[in-house]
Amino acid sequence: MQLKRAAITGIAGWVPENRLTNQDLEKMVDTNDEWIRTRTGINERRILNEKGKGTSDIAVPAVLDLLKKTNTAPEEVDLLICATSTPDMQFPATANVICDKIGIKNAFGYDINAACSGFLYSLVTASKFIETGTYKKIIVVGADKMSSIINYQDRTTCIIFGDGGGAVMLEPSKDDSGIYDSILESDGSGRHYLFQKSGGSVSPATPESVAAREHFVTQEGAHVFKAAVKNLSSSMDRVMKRNNLTSDDIAWFIPHQANLRIIKAAAAYIGLDEKKVAVNISKYGNTTNGTIPLCLWEWESKFKKGDNLILGAFGGGFTWGAVYLKWAYDAPNS
Amino acid sequence: MQLKRAAITGIAGWVPENRLTNQDLEKMVDTNDEWIRTRTGINERRILNEKGKGTSDIAVPAVLDLLKKTNTAPEEVDLLICATSTPDMQFPATANVICDKIGIKNAFGYDINAACSGFLYSLVTASKFIETGTYKKIIVVGADKMSSIINYQDRTTCIIFGDGGGAVMLEPSKDDSGIYDSILESDGSGRHYLFQKSGGSVSPATPESVAAREHFVTQEGAHVFKAAVKNLSSSMDRVMKRNNLTSDDIAWFIPHQANLRIIKAAAAYIGLDEKKVAVNISKYGNTTNGTIPLCLWEWESKFKKGDNLILGAFGGGFTWGAVYLKWAYDAPNS
Repeated sequence: MQLKRAAITGIAGWVPENRLTNQDLEKMVDTNDEWIRTRTGINERRILNEKGKGTSDIAVPAVLDLLKKTNTAPEEVDLLICATSTPDMQFPATANVICDKIGIKNAFGYDINAACSGFLYSLVTASKFIETGTYKKIIVVGADKMSSIINYQDRTTCIIFGDGGGAVMLEPSKDDSGIYDSILESDGSGRHYLFQKSGGSVSPATPESVAAREHFVTQEGAHVFKAAVKNLSSSMDRVMKRNNLTSDDIAWFIPHQANLRIIKAAAAYIGLDEKKVAVNISKYGNTTNGTIPLCLWEWESKFKKGDNLILGAFGGGFTWGAVYLKWAYDAPNS
Repeated sequence: MQLKRAAITGIAGWVPENRLTNQDLEKMVDTNDEWIRTRTGINERRILNEKGKGTSDIAVPAVLDLLKKTNTAPEEVDLLICATSTPDMQFPATANVICDKIGIKNAFGYDINAACSGFLYSLVTASKFIETGTYKKIIVVGADKMSSIINYQDRTTCIIFGDGGGAVMLEPSKDDSGIYDSILESDGSGRHYLFQKSGGSVSPATPESVAAREHFVTQEGAHVFKAAVKNLSSSMDRVMKRNNLTSDDIAWFIPHQANLRIIKAAAAYIGLDEKKVAVNISKYGNTTNGTIPLCLWEWESKFKKGDNLILGAFGGGFTWGAVYLKWAYDAPNS
């Protein structure tokens, strides 16, 4: 059997309405709007602050919109992968929750966790099920309710993260569009610089772990920043070179939105004009698995069929990578 | 490019030395050895009770043994997927921790969560990366430190679960051995019957959630039992029928070890002699993602090259499925 190329045939995103602005944060921790904007590029984030809501409540409206936009019945979906670092529960998988809430009855579903690279890893994983001809309609969700693991007394992390997510439909390509190549890499020695100390099997929840605020994100920013710039740039550069692509050939660079300075450094490394870089970090902050689908969603109307896109991510683990794809369609109302 | 079949080319397992026997449990909760044995088939479980150790500490000795048995250098591994419901930390991925501890430097790694079906889902996922020719050496780990999420005051769950895990090497098949087919399914309506209430984004850790013992497994046993028998049996039956296999053609059935009565009912449904069913639940209990690799590990010396195996699982989500494969080798000292 011949391999079939996998193509993104639809995209949808969703963010909560509630905004947490830099001005709000000035009242919560010792920080200020100017500092946050110049160091991170972030003006505000969205926060899902209704009690009892989790990551599936971000994913569900996105998936519902995706089904509508792609004219897909829930029963037609073969597989739903949810990339998240903040699942609704430790188990069962948030993918199962999403499917149940929507009525996606004929798909199996599971969660992938690779921190901020989870969506990219999941997209490539899903593409293998298409390439082998195993499945025809796969939904890949990237979503996080980061506010559930953020310490709003820690000014180094609470200014960065927000809640949000999106979902793409992956189908066999009917032409020369689709996912061409990917470079995905990890380095577990980075686990000491970006992690959630308690709540897993090494340090389960106890009164002491909660009191010590160990169920929140801990990040050593300077180390992560350097590793992000180096590895994100390198993987993008290599995936372009091995596909004989120069910066002129690239229509759009869709980076994970962790920090505007990381994005700019990576774009500069591959010689890409800033006009070709999708950036919405100012509005949403770092939504972890949500950033790339949220960017694809907001840029959809700008994409033309055949556009060469580079998707790039870096995150906890460390994990990182770059994907090269040819966009598959002109947006319905573009 | 032609699809390549993926074959398991090695298996290793590991369990902690410390045993929790039915007699021990009689002293902890209102239960007794005879009741546990007749209802579940379990005599004892292994418990990783050293402070500060997590699921990666179960996986690492298994992966080290796997590398040795398959004569593989850590640098040769392309991808490591860790199926677990009890990751070391919420993030980064336990796969990254395992790779770092072992020196697996050229692989990317991520975690898959699909409760007790996670290993089966991960095995099939990994096989797609082999079938497409993307990678040549993939390690799939299934491991859980269930004792980190068990309420040892709840006699309905603490008698069932144990700690343990294993790992398989997946490579392109050189002959007609390998993974032929799989049926993987989910039904998220089952999420209300087997779950961990707190510790995720819906209900993050608080002093109240810890005091209420909500960071532990909750199970409504009777409902799960019925769904397990029905769905496990059905998926096995269908995967056999669509590959024209009768019970006579099956050399071994390797089931997830949740309950001896579920295993016997599923084997009876497909008309399989009990001698062909791998059962080690009496020694280890339900190790969640660990059960199938632990069985493959203990049965390895009995397998002959070309043997038809059916792997079957059912777990929280609900998630379930069956895999049909032809075993790829005679064990070195069998």
